[in-house]
Amino acid sequence: MTEPFTFEVLARQGRARAGILHTPHGDIPTPIFAPVGTQATVKALTPAQLIELDAKLILSNTYHLYLRPGDELVASLGGLHQFMAWNRPILTDSGGFQVFSLTDMRKVDDDGVTFKSHIDGSTHRLTPEKSIAIQENLGADIIMAFDECASPYDRSYLEKAMNRTHLWAERCLNAQTRRDQALFGIVQGGIFPDLRQQSAETIASLGFPGHAIGGLSVGETKEEMHRVLELVDAILPESKPRYLMGVGTPGDLVNGIRRGIDIFDCVLPTRLARHQAAMTPTGRINLLNAANARDDRPIVTGCGCYTCQHFSRAYLRHLIIAKEMLSATLVSIHNIYTLLQLTRDLRQSILEGRFDEFCIENDPQLATGE
Amino acid sequence: MTEPFTFEVLARQGRARAGILHTPHGDIPTPIFAPVGTQATVKALTPAQLIELDAKLILSNTYHLYLRPGDELVASLGGLHQFMAWNRPILTDSGGFQVFSLTDMRKVDDDGVTFKSHIDGSTHRLTPEKSIAIQENLGADIIMAFDECASPYDRSYLEKAMNRTHLWAERCLNAQTRRDQALFGIVQGGIFPDLRQQSAETIASLGFPGHAIGGLSVGETKEEMHRVLELVDAILPESKPRYLMGVGTPGDLVNGIRRGIDIFDCVLPTRLARHQAAMTPTGRINLLNAANARDDRPIVTGCGCYTCQHFSRAYLRHLIIAKEMLSATLVSIHNIYTLLQLTRDLRQSILEGRFDEFCIENDPQLATGE
Repeated sequence: MTEPFTFEVLARQGRARAGILHTPHGDIPTPIFAPVGTQATVKALTPAQLIELDAKLILSNTYHLYLRPGDELVASLGGLHQFMAWNRPILTDSGGFQVFSLTDMRKVDDDGVTFKSHIDGSTHRLTPEKSIAIQENLGADIIMAFDECASPYDRSYLEKAMNRTHLWAERCLNAQTRRDQALFGIVQGGIFPDLRQQSAETIASLGFPGHAIGGLSVGETKEEMHRVLELVDAILPESKPRYLMGVGTPGDLVNGIRRGIDIFDCVLPTRLARHQAAMTPTGRINLLNAANARDDRPIVTGCGCYTCQHFSRAYLRHLIIAKEMLSATLVSIHNIYTLLQLTRDLRQSILEGRFDEFCIENDPQLATGE
Repeated sequence: MTEPFTFEVLARQGRARAGILHTPHGDIPTPIFAPVGTQATVKALTPAQLIELDAKLILSNTYHLYLRPGDELVASLGGLHQFMAWNRPILTDSGGFQVFSLTDMRKVDDDGVTFKSHIDGSTHRLTPEKSIAIQENLGADIIMAFDECASPYDRSYLEKAMNRTHLWAERCLNAQTRRDQALFGIVQGGIFPDLRQQSAETIASLGFPGHAIGGLSVGETKEEMHRVLELVDAILPESKPRYLMGVGTPGDLVNGIRRGIDIFDCVLPTRLARHQAAMTPTGRINLLNAANARDDRPIVTGCGCYTCQHFSRAYLRHLIIAKEMLSATLVSIHNIYTLLQLTRDLRQSILEGRFDEFCIENDPQLATGE
């Protein structure tokens, strides 16, 4: 993978780094947080609102789009960028995470996975080759190898799943036909240092243009997550971007960046927004709380997002109680802004050589990341 | 009512007229269509999206805001404009229409109405004085007299309700304490020409700065509606704006403007949007229809709205099937744009002396209004 996906590291502080990933749909400044648009829409937001938030990269889900509306339909309508009217970079996952989450509805073998649709119970099969074919139909800028994400503590099964993931990674590379998509390999291995080391070395040896760390934020402790990140960070080549999958609390972003991560994604900001929870760098606010009934303050005083610039907590609480859709939109805007702005601030602090100071000055919780 | 609410008629063609209503929160070019924000939000849209649509006036509901979050709370937070972050003109209804719609949960007497909340069954009472007090707390630019909207064919009851409405109109005028709100009187009388004449003459004699025509679009035929509009048009003073309440199909707008109406409101564009129906000047499109599954065309080819500029029918259908909130937002944007743009085009045609030609050229259906 050459020109369209060059990755430049502009500055480092400790293991943290600030860079730029060039893609066919534009540059992604790293570190970056990617909001999730599961079904070809970041829930409750228009692309125009995401542009106003200056989101640079969004993630969409292969499993969901394969089932509905179908990757071939998306391809026939010009691909995912055109379908959802998002002209900036898109990343699609491989479908593996969702399929393996259907614990009672799937059967894995060394060749792939047979599963039942959560929508209508129909039977389908995903293999590394099929996942790549779907992702090529969708046409994202960054696509992911088909992996098996297993429970982080079940060593004997994890080992089997990891070996399968390594074989599948090679099959994905061989299956790829488009040269305008960057295919990232995924490191697995649960919480076990020797497995993670083996996985990172194997995946790194395959020549992917970028690497992801999967199987985290699935039940392990923060300390276990951090140990895995440090171990993997020391093995993966520094010249290529690293993506920590499915992770996205403010503390996780700080702690991931501190350990060499460049890309994050998470449904958290939009999911919390639909459950009345506003994110702040230091914790969450339940907007339904009666204390907000007459509160004329924004969610976060001084926050630069559209929601905080215009609306009080009292208004947001009213929308939630009145079951108005606008609450999900406004709180999603705030929550996504919180993570994007935190990432922008952290990036700037790396560029200016004051990453540690930024973390300490802004919040003790950020420093420890909890 | 003097300076803040001057109304200028700039051009006439037949009975149609183009004008400007000056209000404390800005000028309203007439004829105008007002989207409805029942609970202090136009459903699924941010104020920024309404500004992008160039909505000039929105309506909000006294009944709903009185019950939740409460008009005193809204007042304590700076009034409705600040509460919902809408700095352009707002019109509030009187609460009468909603209260009288609660047929089994209200009891009317000459002094007012006792009713049960649709939210929690609690008992409340609205009188002309109370309605004005609530509307003064909310602080809209245009407020409405408290009226009784009765079934359009029940002559004996209608007569009673009309007389009550006239007495209540005077009480509303006497109750008003704020001078920065324009209080409009409402003509009732169902489909009966003599009652409508009597009501228009009585209401016109009271000196309101604007007049509304209530009790239409509640079951009568289009011919009956048009006859009432023509009759009332001949009586109400031409120097004051006329508002046709709760009416908003493309045909109704054309036919209302043709009969001297300046202001319209309706929940139709947003309600239809939440039920997968896209409005066009010539009819509705059910976006869920299988014919749209692979259709890469926008709802209306050539439409200037954000939705039609960016999204295919196939994408909108996908959002609807996937139960994504964004569908309500995008179709609401299109539907509101359709009515706003039609009204803008009709206004321009009046200013340019080609109103009739515009109606005929653009669509035979517009000419008859169906």
